[in-house]
This record gives sequence, structure tokens and C-alpha cells, in this order.
Amino acid sequence: MAKILHVDSSSRSKNSNSRQLSKYFVEKWIETHPADSVIYRDLVQDSLVPLTDTVISAMYTPPEQRTEAMSSDYATLIDKNVQEVIDADIYVFGVPMYNFSVPGAFKSYIDRIVVVGRTFSYGADGLKGLLQNKKAFILRSSGSNFDGPPYASMDFHEPYLRAIFGFIGISDITFVKVDGHSEEEISAAMKKAKEQIDHLTAEQKLVSAGR
Amino acid sequence: MAKILHVDSSSRSKNSNSRQLSKYFVEKWIETHPADSVIYRDLVQDSLVPLTDTVISAMYTPPEQRTEAMSSDYATLIDKNVQEVIDADIYVFGVPMYNFSVPGAFKSYIDRIVVVGRTFSYGADGLKGLLQNKKAFILRSSGSNFDGPPYASMDFHEPYLRAIFGFIGISDITFVKVDGHSEEEISAAMKKAKEQIDHLTAEQKLVSAGR
Repeated sequence: MAKILHVDSSSRSKNSNSRQLSKYFVEKWIETHPADSVIYRDLVQDSLVPLTDTVISAMYTPPEQRTEAMSSDYATLIDKNVQEVIDADIYVFGVPMYNFSVPGAFKSYIDRIVVVGRTFSYGADGLKGLLQNKKAFILRSSGSNFDGPPYASMDFHEPYLRAIFGFIGISDITFVKVDGHSEEEISAAMKKAKEQIDHLTAEQKLVSAGR
Repeated sequence: MAKILHVDSSSRSKNSNSRQLSKYFVEKWIETHPADSVIYRDLVQDSLVPLTDTVISAMYTPPEQRTEAMSSDYATLIDKNVQEVIDADIYVFGVPMYNFSVPGAFKSYIDRIVVVGRTFSYGADGLKGLLQNKKAFILRSSGSNFDGPPYASMDFHEPYLRAIFGFIGISDITFVKVDGHSEEEISAAMKKAKEQIDHLTAEQKLVSAGR
């Protein structure tokens, strides 16, 4: 029984392609893996609570070295997000491309789940990502196609997410991408993306069964 | 008389190196350019108002084609930020590196000032950045030095800011960087950064005088 963490970050509440695809992904997944469970977070509708100086210090301090104030602020403000990421087996993240990178809301989420001693560690053996054996699916919409020249060098979305998720141990990442400007382009791209999701959710059956 | 737009984005309210440097920069600048004016925005203490679906549509619609609802939401939620960026001659941005990129709050700011018809345009002659003849100074703090191998490929801060600011026309960008882990390293780096700022603020005198 796998645990799914489903997160949306589009600033649009309606007519969001990334929200539509992440929802479709989870629905299809549950069709083929009915015993799996889902937690859902909307980073825009339920915006993240602001951080304090104390909790930021806590994030850079190994849990056993934190002051009482750090531990307390950490428990109140951050721990729920971090624990959800640790507990989940599969991530389904709706992350549109805004201005060549991830939305501000998704970056704020990253700034909250990268925590020493929880999602990464460093010691005598160097840096180590602690989120092992996870699978991430990233549903991305963008205006243009960034997969080749001339736009590939302007893509600070996929390479960035692979770098920061790799840092915390998540290396098995699949992108489902939709791009286009006109309604016809987007409609055709959404159809293809849903077919890709149909395959991905069917094909992953063995992963979940093996847990 | 140049207009300075001073923006901070560190999540820390105290003991922030980027805040300390951006403040120092503006103070030194005003010493040498006493007639210049300064507008200050704190993206964390005065957090940005949430966007609506309507205003997002407005941002992608040339001003003359917007509906009344789009124009109204745009005027209320976005225009002040955009107008400040258009009006300023010099940007002094405190932008620490968090998790290899800019803070979530700064990305949300970028997602608000990149607006078609205002900061960039596209037409028969392609894309065009509209913020011409601006100078940007970016005060950046980070844990490690990312200027060479092995970390340079993990820097999604400077290359990203050069790409997105370049897109809206800002190509004259100077980074002042502070990095280090120990108090001694940081203290030495801050001293060097302030010397760099002393030079930059003195040397730019001609720019402002020429306006």
C-alpha cells in the first residue's frame, strides 16, 4: 500500500493544465492501485505559514542540537510538510513553468522541505539525500517547448527540480509536459499527456504491489 | 536624479547577510548620490497579495485587449509592483541563495513583474525586453562558493536571474557575493563584499550625474 503525496502549485484555481493533469494522474493511479492512499496539498489555496528566524535556524541545525525554541517552532511551522514528504512513497506534483522556472509557491515549498537531519544529512561521508526509494511524477505546463534549441538553455524548471530533488535523494523523476499557445495546440498536448499518464499509472502497478 | 528600487527577500528578519549588504549598498550610494531617491520593498515582512485567476489572465493579455475585470484586478493587485520596476533606474536586490536558487518570495516577485506590454513585448520583431538602460545590483549570500567546479552546475540563482532579467531587458547586472559556513569565513567575506560595494557606489557616480 503506497502513500501518494499530491501537491498543486498553479496560481490559477480554474483552467490550470497542471492541476487538471495532476488530478487525472491521481484518479488513474487509484483506479489501478485502489489500496493506495492520497494526501493532497494546495500550495496556493492553503498558503504556507510564514517562517520565523528561529525556525530557519532550526532547519540548518541537526535535530539533536536544536534549542527548545527551535524545536518548538519547527514542530509548529515545518514538521507537518517535512513528515508528509518523508512518509510518502510517490509524489505527484503539479508544477507549471512560470518565467522559465517553478512558481514562487512551489519554491517556498522546496525551501521548507530541505531540512538537515530529515531530508538530507552531511557527515564524514559527505552529503547524503535521505529520501530514498521514492518516485516523483511532475506534471508541467508551459507556453513553449523547452526540450531542444533554442529554448533548452532557458529551462530552469526541469534541470532545477532534478538537481534539488536529487540533493534530497529523489532521483527517479518522470516529467509529463504540456506546452502550446493556441487552444488547439494545448488541447492536442493535453490528449497526449493523458495517454502518457494512462501508460505510467498502468505500468507502475508492480512497484506498488512489491511494497 | 536616479530612482533606486531597494528590495529584500531574505526569510530572516535579523542576521541576514543579504539584508545587511543591500542596506549598506543603499547607504553608501546615497552618500555619493545624495539627490537620488529610494523606494524600499520587503517581500517577506510585507508579503505580496495573492493573485486571482483574472489578474493572471491580465498579465498574459496586452493592456489594450484586457477585459474590464482584468484591468481592474491588475490595477489593484499588480500595477504598483510593475510601475515601481518601470520607474526605477537602479535596482538593489538582496537575494540570498536558498536551495541553489532564489527564495520563494523573490520568485513570487518575478512572477508579478514579468508582464506583457509592460516589461516585455512581442510582435512582428519578436520578443523585446522593455526595461532598457537599467542597472541591477544583486547582493547574494550562500553557504558555498558556486563560482567554479564542482558547484557551478548547481547554481540556479545567478544564471537564472541573468536569464529572466535579460528577458525583460535588464542586462547590466552586477553580483556581490558572500559565502561561507563558519563565522570567520562569513566575516571575512562580508568585509570583502563591503569593499566591493564601496568601489561600485563610488564608481557609478558618472551614471547618475549623466541623467
